[in-house]
Amino acid sequence: MSGEIREECGVFAVAGHPRAVELCYYGLYALQHRGQESAGIAWRQGGRLRVHKGMGLVSDVFPPERVVSMNGDMALGHVRYSTTGESRIENAQPLLVKMWRGQFALAHNGNLTNAALLRRELEREGSIFQTTSDSEVIPHLVAKSGEKELLGALQSAFEKVCGAYSLIALTPHGLIAAKDPRGFRPLCLGELDGAYVVSSETCGLDAVGAEFIREIDPGETVEVLLPREGEDARPSIRTVAGPKSERQALCVFEFIYFARPDSDIYGLNVHRARKRLGRVLAKKGPVEADLVMGVPDSSLSAASGFAEEAGIPFETGLVKNRYIGRTFISPEQSLRELAVKIKLNPLRSLLKDKRVVLVDDSIVRGTTSRYIVGLLRSAGAKEVHVRISSPPYKYPCYYGIDTSSKGELAAASQTVEEIREAIGADSLVFLDMGDLQDILGTAIDGFCYSCFAGDYPVPVEGWPKEDELNDLF
Amino acid sequence: MSGEIREECGVFAVAGHPRAVELCYYGLYALQHRGQESAGIAWRQGGRLRVHKGMGLVSDVFPPERVVSMNGDMALGHVRYSTTGESRIENAQPLLVKMWRGQFALAHNGNLTNAALLRRELEREGSIFQTTSDSEVIPHLVAKSGEKELLGALQSAFEKVCGAYSLIALTPHGLIAAKDPRGFRPLCLGELDGAYVVSSETCGLDAVGAEFIREIDPGETVEVLLPREGEDARPSIRTVAGPKSERQALCVFEFIYFARPDSDIYGLNVHRARKRLGRVLAKKGPVEADLVMGVPDSSLSAASGFAEEAGIPFETGLVKNRYIGRTFISPEQSLRELAVKIKLNPLRSLLKDKRVVLVDDSIVRGTTSRYIVGLLRSAGAKEVHVRISSPPYKYPCYYGIDTSSKGELAAASQTVEEIREAIGADSLVFLDMGDLQDILGTAIDGFCYSCFAGDYPVPVEGWPKEDELNDLF
Amino acid sequence: MSGEIREECGVFAVAGHPRAVELCYYGLYALQHRGQESAGIAWRQGGRLRVHKGMGLVSDVFPPERVVSMNGDMALGHVRYSTTGESRIENAQPLLVKMWRGQFALAHNGNLTNAALLRRELEREGSIFQTTSDSEVIPHLVAKSGEKELLGALQSAFEKVCGAYSLIALTPHGLIAAKDPRGFRPLCLGELDGAYVVSSETCGLDAVGAEFIREIDPGETVEVLLPREGEDARPSIRTVAGPKSERQALCVFEFIYFARPDSDIYGLNVHRARKRLGRVLAKKGPVEADLVMGVPDSSLSAASGFAEEAGIPFETGLVKNRYIGRTFISPEQSLRELAVKIKLNPLRSLLKDKRVVLVDDSIVRGTTSRYIVGLLRSAGAKEVHVRISSPPYKYPCYYGIDTSSKGELAAASQTVEEIREAIGADSLVFLDMGDLQDILGTAIDGFCYSCFAGDYPVPVEGWPKEDELNDLF
Amino acid sequence: MSGEIREECGVFAVAGHPRAVELCYYGLYALQHRGQESAGIAWRQGGRLRVHKGMGLVSDVFPPERVVSMNGDMALGHVRYSTTGESRIENAQPLLVKMWRGQFALAHNGNLTNAALLRRELEREGSIFQTTSDSEVIPHLVAKSGEKELLGALQSAFEKVCGAYSLIALTPHGLIAAKDPRGFRPLCLGELDGAYVVSSETCGLDAVGAEFIREIDPGETVEVLLPREGEDARPSIRTVAGPKSERQALCVFEFIYFARPDSDIYGLNVHRARKRLGRVLAKKGPVEADLVMGVPDSSLSAASGFAEEAGIPFETGLVKNRYIGRTFISPEQSLRELAVKIKLNPLRSLLKDKRVVLVDDSIVRGTTSRYIVGLLRSAGAKEVHVRISSPPYKYPCYYGIDTSSKGELAAASQTVEEIREAIGADSLVFLDMGDLQDILGTAIDGFCYSCFAGDYPVPVEGWPKEDELNDLF
Repeated sequence: MSGEIREECGVFAVAGHPRAVELCYYGLYALQHRGQESAGIAWRQGGRLRVHKGMGLVSDVFPPERVVSMNGDMALGHVRYSTTGESRIENAQPLLVKMWRGQFALAHNGNLTNAALLRRELEREGSIFQTTSDSEVIPHLVAKSGEKELLGALQSAFEKVCGAYSLIALTPHGLIAAKDPRGFRPLCLGELDGAYVVSSETCGLDAVGAEFIREIDPGETVEVLLPREGEDARPSIRTVAGPKSERQALCVFEFIYFARPDSDIYGLNVHRARKRLGRVLAKKGPVEADLVMGVPDSSLSAASGFAEEAGIPFETGLVKNRYIGRTFISPEQSLRELAVKIKLNPLRSLLKDKRVVLVDDSIVRGTTSRYIVGLLRSAGAKEVHVRISSPPYKYPCYYGIDTSSKGELAAASQTVEEIREAIGADSLVFLDMGDLQDILGTAIDGFCYSCFAGDYPVPVEGWPKEDELNDLF
Repeated sequence: MSGEIREECGVFAVAGHPRAVELCYYGLYALQHRGQESAGIAWRQGGRLRVHKGMGLVSDVFPPERVVSMNGDMALGHVRYSTTGESRIENAQPLLVKMWRGQFALAHNGNLTNAALLRRELEREGSIFQTTSDSEVIPHLVAKSGEKELLGALQSAFEKVCGAYSLIALTPHGLIAAKDPRGFRPLCLGELDGAYVVSSETCGLDAVGAEFIREIDPGETVEVLLPREGEDARPSIRTVAGPKSERQALCVFEFIYFARPDSDIYGLNVHRARKRLGRVLAKKGPVEADLVMGVPDSSLSAASGFAEEAGIPFETGLVKNRYIGRTFISPEQSLRELAVKIKLNPLRSLLKDKRVVLVDDSIVRGTTSRYIVGLLRSAGAKEVHVRISSPPYKYPCYYGIDTSSKGELAAASQTVEEIREAIGADSLVFLDMGDLQDILGTAIDGFCYSCFAGDYPVPVEGWPKEDELNDLF
Repeated sequence: MSGEIREECGVFAVAGHPRAVELCYYGLYALQHRGQESAGIAWRQGGRLRVHKGMGLVSDVFPPERVVSMNGDMALGHVRYSTTGESRIENAQPLLVKMWRGQFALAHNGNLTNAALLRRELEREGSIFQTTSDSEVIPHLVAKSGEKELLGALQSAFEKVCGAYSLIALTPHGLIAAKDPRGFRPLCLGELDGAYVVSSETCGLDAVGAEFIREIDPGETVEVLLPREGEDARPSIRTVAGPKSERQALCVFEFIYFARPDSDIYGLNVHRARKRLGRVLAKKGPVEADLVMGVPDSSLSAASGFAEEAGIPFETGLVKNRYIGRTFISPEQSLRELAVKIKLNPLRSLLKDKRVVLVDDSIVRGTTSRYIVGLLRSAGAKEVHVRISSPPYKYPCYYGIDTSSKGELAAASQTVEEIREAIGADSLVFLDMGDLQDILGTAIDGFCYSCFAGDYPVPVEGWPKEDELNDLF
Repeated sequence: MSGEIREECGVFAVAGHPRAVELCYYGLYALQHRGQESAGIAWRQGGRLRVHKGMGLVSDVFPPERVVSMNGDMALGHVRYSTTGESRIENAQPLLVKMWRGQFALAHNGNLTNAALLRRELEREGSIFQTTSDSEVIPHLVAKSGEKELLGALQSAFEKVCGAYSLIALTPHGLIAAKDPRGFRPLCLGELDGAYVVSSETCGLDAVGAEFIREIDPGETVEVLLPREGEDARPSIRTVAGPKSERQALCVFEFIYFARPDSDIYGLNVHRARKRLGRVLAKKGPVEADLVMGVPDSSLSAASGFAEEAGIPFETGLVKNRYIGRTFISPEQSLRELAVKIKLNPLRSLLKDKRVVLVDDSIVRGTTSRYIVGLLRSAGAKEVHVRISSPPYKYPCYYGIDTSSKGELAAASQTVEEIREAIGADSLVFLDMGDLQDILGTAIDGFCYSCFAGDYPVPVEGWPKEDELNDLF
């Protein structure tokens, strides 16, 4: 269930606005759902790039007194949840390095599938890595490239890396935004008062009042050149030759779970797409029930679609606590569950003796589903019918979703009936691949469905084994 | 609107459980919506009371490494939003003092209307106050009482104070919970493994798995006596003579806005009560529209009731950012609104060219309403019809709701039509007092409606003027 | 030895200078040797008194960014080492309270011998204490006095308290400095650009460039009245009737150990006094030796006097580490002594095969002496002759020196010969009372020698027993 | 004067002791005088190297609760004052990097004179530097060396770097300590319970109770090999071929000012050497005076030597405040000097109408000398005769002493008479080179006197200009 998949990363940048840092800060706020582990902003001030980053939420890392001291006309931000590399401050992005070409800052969303191989090679040649993040191979490739210009050096790096990257790089002179040839992760372009804005999702553009221009194409590299700091000229933008584009493979999970409901990707609104998934799910798995409810917050859109289609009242059966931070877990066995419990409270008077449809976006390990079904039953629900607005999640992702649960994917080894029994539901229905392709695939051309279907669009053979990871990085 | 009313306080206590501190911590988490300014816990350890408190959320004040070091079988917690007294650490509760009778800790929800008068008297007699909170008069009255036992001393204090108090006191020997004769604020009793639990709302009991016993009566004083620390006997409980009870005046705003939807007060569920308000509102203010939406999160229950009754689809027209902490406000005029904007984003593709019903719980100053109506229009809404699930808010509250907006209450000086124009809505309908009394008054006997009707059940003549406050406290 | 006696407190105040807070800050720096446990400053800003205090050194509690925000024309500072009351922030001074007469800040050097009795009485009458410090009885007595003016109230408090106090009080209108009738602790008056300065020692006056006026007399109360904040008039000063003065009993340990060598008390320079003690000691305890050395830093003056008189070279046999902060103590038995060892390192090449005279100011428990004698021997010293520049310390002090070691005073139960053996010295000579009286008593009239002679000038009968202390405070 | 020369760095390591981290911590305490800007310790735990470092003193960076969590049998520590590279946390040492040969930690005392040239080259080849410290070229040279073993790689790096280095490197398998061919900075070897200890000065060995073995030779590289963590075998040590040794050039300023008086270098005790300098100075610059005093603390040894030779009483004319941390500097012009003033207070009663000899170790810019001479005069001194226990400081140092004052060296452009006038002394005498060579050069063979004589033993042509430095690093 939603709690078991962790988001990857969000990137945001502004080039050519006198308040670029502030705008970047607000943009990161809007992308916070994509990563809550660390946050950072690099910016141009006094002709040089600087960076401030830290562990925690944007509001933790950037208290007002800090933001006020960061001024610049170009800024690059990142929020992170680690998919490879340990969770520690060294791995927070943007990475800012100095090489002979000068300063270079990088913020990366996605996973490079051959990072381990490249890193081994680079280290053999004498490169010293400072992080355990896959992203760091990019600055090293750039530093060692024979290319004279940074843009060329970056392009030559793109020819070596495989996998998923929606990235933004900053130099003291401008900004470069690029997507891998498959376009796994979203990245869009906007405009505000003559400045350019790049964001993982359109909700970032909305947050700063920027106008949406377009989604960056798979394989595209966009360069924004800035006048010198203080000069009055406008920034210029151009698309430059990138890595050869191939058939797009946009991560379908962006629509199922990752993206914010108010974001549009390639013109398709996420909330509306989820409602449609819910509607089709209602047709596929009809059931007699008294109420429909979703797991807050990610499944509410699909649940309301289900309720509308099924003509069953949509209800708020679970109240989510909005104030959860780092929480104490009792060492006492009998109190262990309280830390989970304070996050979700079932509405007893509503659920008592009711037949409930519980809509969720996915089942990963199944433990959260089992917990919530139990919660509803203990609150008096007579029947709990679970409906999942995506197909069974069977294959690990190598392009940016947390794969820590690899061997633990419930659907990898269990039938639907076995899962139903394991989570204690009265019935369980998933969407199937065909449904998903009908609903989303007709709106957007080219998705990566590999977590459902196992057909990886980019090879992942270089992927290190679990126990090699620590040693390598 | 909801953003303009600030909650008051929440109190929670556990007596007679070996993990009382941890339970109290989880209980405060569940009551966090009642106060986000400061949090604190007093507990019994090694025969003495201790206290830890701080500014901020429960998760800020009590990081796991702190909770682990707090052990005791009796604990008292408080979350605060200040209604009188400055916002500073000295005013955080529980107040812990030492007097000749020994230690005494106090957590208080409500406002004492004659605190200023009492304080002036006590100071004349030589008492030295340490806070600027109205609650501190209680320990001073207790300290100066001739009564031998703490219970008696507290009861004699109750004879002197006026106003609203749902309070819990702790001594090294037991716990006392009391409600003022009118019972303005909720306070309920629960039981867990032989221990007693007291909480502002039932969602606090749920959070720790305690069983609900009953709501404490207006004017009732309950005493829980504990065996000595380490002894095995069970705590005993009894109701003792309290101040003379009068006709109950439960704050109606608990149902309209304050309480969490999953709480029950006197057996009435808050979410269901709000849905009923929404249903009646739909009958009172019908309108042709394409969708119904609520202001997240407090108005969603009422909005869904409205939608069901009206047969208009219930939609998520505004997405609320869940990660807002202390936020930087740009000094640049043109960016000023961004800090507000990141909190709520309208779903353009949903709202475009639609006739929208916007349900909210109340209008206080009207500025938030105007902001949200504008937000919806800028996202393309064709019509915006505002429906408020309570009557016009005309009179300041002296019993625990923030009165900072006294002179600024929109409904105090404007007609409904004038407010409609001010907030830019196409139409505006409030519930009226009769509706409210029909819906809630039949379920529960005795509400305080003074903010709507101006008939204050307890005199407020001693209330200091704005400019006296600082001098007095 | 010196490490075993802990200093008491230092007080410093400035009235009538536009930079009073800064001056106070520098003054506290100069008095830091009198207390390293906590530091605090109260000052007048915007017509009200404020306070900032914390645990640690002046430089810890007052980082530059803090000082810069504290502006006022009147300031009162305190550095503390606790003699009664636990070591915690609540006990840090100045104490700032609000009572009906208005605000009142207090900084106190000394010990009130009847504080426990007074506190018990006050609590019975309903006073609530906030600290466990003996000083807090004073504001409570002031608050309860029937006197109209603060000065009168303070004077009436003086009639009730016994013991040692050199104190300074601040109100929004002026400053009051007072000494107890015996004048146990020093307190002097200075002048700077028309402002008045009060300091525990003259080195505080030197630190701010103030001119020394005179030592405050035993039993004297001085009042400095200030014009309103912002007004241009000069402060006025007057001596007012204080508690009846009695025969002075200035603590002789100020000369032996407490005061800084560059301070003068009643015109006698501390360094020169110590040299004289050393000279007389050389006559009293002559010995054939190769070098004379002192325990740094407190005994260097006496040691150099000894060396000059004896005609033996004065050497630096021990190097003291100047960078010792809070130090890790190894849990490993064999490494336990390292934490002590890094503080003092003997100069092997100097000590090897030498006959050494080691001068120290006192022997309290004897453990430090034994440690240092051992250190010198392990560095190769052939003989170690210990010379103490004061008589045997036999009786606990109740007037402001740490009495924690009460029962442990080496000289209380051991003869000089027994002590010599215990500390492992080749010979041991103390000054005797007659010497001390000859040297210091002729320069200043009226010392308290009670730690040497046991004749307490002020009764200490009310003194609570060790185990009562915690309960009382 | 002493305040104007800033120390460089101190290094300390322990290999093969179960409490290596703690010992290292105590060792750094003893070397704290060599650098107060940052401190750090790298250690082996669980088969991997870790590091903890921070800005500030050892006691700030390593609070007890931190030390207790650091366990290992091999540890390497560093205290730093920056001579090149900005003062910031990235530049704190030990540097810990991961390269293909594995982990590598480095602590370096000294300055590499061709670091800028090497860095430029390395960056051109694709190396990415993380600090602005000259020391970082070493790990990069090691990473790029074709050598298979770390020792060989380090030796090949030594063939490329020029300048001063007394350094210690750590790998998960052992420790390497090395001195440059000239041996500019001290570095000695000790033994403790079968473990090996390396320290900048012998006072570090004393601090942990280690036995002094010998000073490491110029050009020598020592390797200590450790058994695997947890294995019981003893560490083994061997000297391996290092860079070709040349005529030693030990920095003479170690004896004049840097080293702690209780340290021995090549068997010569620092305090005794300074006394000898003072004695010869007394012969060279005799004067009729009432007292001799030194500037605390660095000049006390020389001053006492002067006093003994001249037969003039040695006095404590200046009292130094021992509690100075980060100090507020008043923005008010008239109070500016107070921050300096609280550090040193003259003893008026001692100085009044006296003819004073003031001994100091050196004059750099002359501002401190002028300040102190003024201080003594304002305290009443009739004559102030300044005696300097070293020759005029005329040439900047490139081997590890702070050269920020390059153009500002008083003796570079002024005659002795001009300096005397500038500092306001009645007379001024320096030691001359011949004296210095006679006193120290006979005890130890081979000093670097370049700051006095300008004959640099290692070329410094690659040294970047002031304005290039920021750009390069």
